[in-house]
Amino acid sequence: MKIGFIGLGVMGKSIASNLMKAGYSLNIYTRTKSKAAELTAKGAVWMNTAGQVAAASDVIISMVGYPKDVEEVYFGENGIVDHAQEGSVLIDMTTSSPLLAQKIYEQAKARNISALDAPVSGGDVGAREARLSIMAGGDPEAFERVKPVFETMGKNIVLQGEAGAGQYTKMCNQIAIAANMIGVCEAVAYAQKAGLDPGTVLKSIGSGAAGSWSLSNLAPRMIAGDFAPGFYVKHFIKDMTIALDTAQKMGMMTPGLELAKTLYEKLAADGAEDDGTQALFKLFV
Amino acid sequence: MKIGFIGLGVMGKSIASNLMKAGYSLNIYTRTKSKAAELTAKGAVWMNTAGQVAAASDVIISMVGYPKDVEEVYFGENGIVDHAQEGSVLIDMTTSSPLLAQKIYEQAKARNISALDAPVSGGDVGAREARLSIMAGGDPEAFERVKPVFETMGKNIVLQGEAGAGQYTKMCNQIAIAANMIGVCEAVAYAQKAGLDPGTVLKSIGSGAAGSWSLSNLAPRMIAGDFAPGFYVKHFIKDMTIALDTAQKMGMMTPGLELAKTLYEKLAADGAEDDGTQALFKLFV
Repeated sequence: MKIGFIGLGVMGKSIASNLMKAGYSLNIYTRTKSKAAELTAKGAVWMNTAGQVAAASDVIISMVGYPKDVEEVYFGENGIVDHAQEGSVLIDMTTSSPLLAQKIYEQAKARNISALDAPVSGGDVGAREARLSIMAGGDPEAFERVKPVFETMGKNIVLQGEAGAGQYTKMCNQIAIAANMIGVCEAVAYAQKAGLDPGTVLKSIGSGAAGSWSLSNLAPRMIAGDFAPGFYVKHFIKDMTIALDTAQKMGMMTPGLELAKTLYEKLAADGAEDDGTQALFKLFV
Repeated sequence: MKIGFIGLGVMGKSIASNLMKAGYSLNIYTRTKSKAAELTAKGAVWMNTAGQVAAASDVIISMVGYPKDVEEVYFGENGIVDHAQEGSVLIDMTTSSPLLAQKIYEQAKARNISALDAPVSGGDVGAREARLSIMAGGDPEAFERVKPVFETMGKNIVLQGEAGAGQYTKMCNQIAIAANMIGVCEAVAYAQKAGLDPGTVLKSIGSGAAGSWSLSNLAPRMIAGDFAPGFYVKHFIKDMTIALDTAQKMGMMTPGLELAKTLYEKLAADGAEDDGTQALFKLFV
């Protein structure tokens, strides 16, 4: 089975490496060719467009940046959908719009091509260590066919429903994080302003009802003044924008998400868009 | 050592029971005498006022409802501070105002009495199973003297600083919970509106960066429509009111806390003040 891989950012490169380690042959394309050097040195085959990768592969995986990049690689000139072979499976692992995932699914289906949306959580470390959580949407048959591929990159692999369900699930993930980040920042800032030692406060509150991944993993970085990414502020804003757009289309109120998006946009406007998400703390001190 | 115990609500009764199991003799008082029957049947000595309990005990523990109840049992007619013996130790375990804790400390000190604030987290189950997290403020000497008493009720026992530091720490705990509850409600509601199975979504997002105690423990109750307390909406509003008042005195912004308080007050106005905090979900569906 030949796998095409499009998009070799931090996440994509780790996932592609794990596929090669598992013995898969890779055809690769990414916007910045220099990012492919490490993989071509190991035997991956460089191609000049996403369409060429698609034409030469049985399973085509994309992991790019923004929904507009997904649009481009799937539907642009030399795009995946026009060039993929009948019977192939497309997998978009970018965190992107559920509606765009449904569009890819429909257009691919019209050409007898399967498509799955399969965004992940777990970050750069999870990608490197093949411990990603993979949330998929699409047809069960396609999901089962590529499950061995997913198993080279993640541990918690769940088909959440029809096309778009993976993206909707990832939005649930980002929505839960969004409001919680505000609470974590406020708790740490309150501790400091009250004259407490925030590290000692974490000993009391970290493992009970206030406990969260963000409190355990990001609060210590806030306290240490370490704002390196991790997960970029600019990417989190992208995700919250998709979440808010889709929530509004569903007619639901999301005051916590709206507040988080507003605060993160202020943070980015202050010049922190390339910081990690824990940099939100800067607004509170 | 004779221990005085004032306030036999759900939490107080469990803590007092564990003290008796550990072999301590108890003098008890609570506003509603019928709540004392179970403990007097086991040998606890009923007294008619908080002051009488204080006069007859070496360590006096209070676990009442609101800051005004704390004011009443410490400073009211027949109050603890006027009637406690020199050299005794007062411990207020109510979640209450840090400033009131400092006032109790000062007034007690003027009579050669020690005072600690020691609110807890862990809820009714933690109280019953002696697994509370205890966050204390006050003098280290007094803390060490009563540590064996704390050890009959909790596992994670931390002196956080001077008088009031226990209450400030508990406020950090409640602040972290407040904004996160909004995010958990939004994530579950979004999953439902998107046509996903929210229980399956939790399998994908529960153990990663979106993970939290509330997502693991309260989201399943939201999904099941189980709004029984747990932790009462009305008590959480009390705690958020204290947190917001003190945050404003410290001149810090707390938009997440403010939003949570506003939403919970709306929920209480809708008649849900005796529900558990997971009932916030009702506003989102």
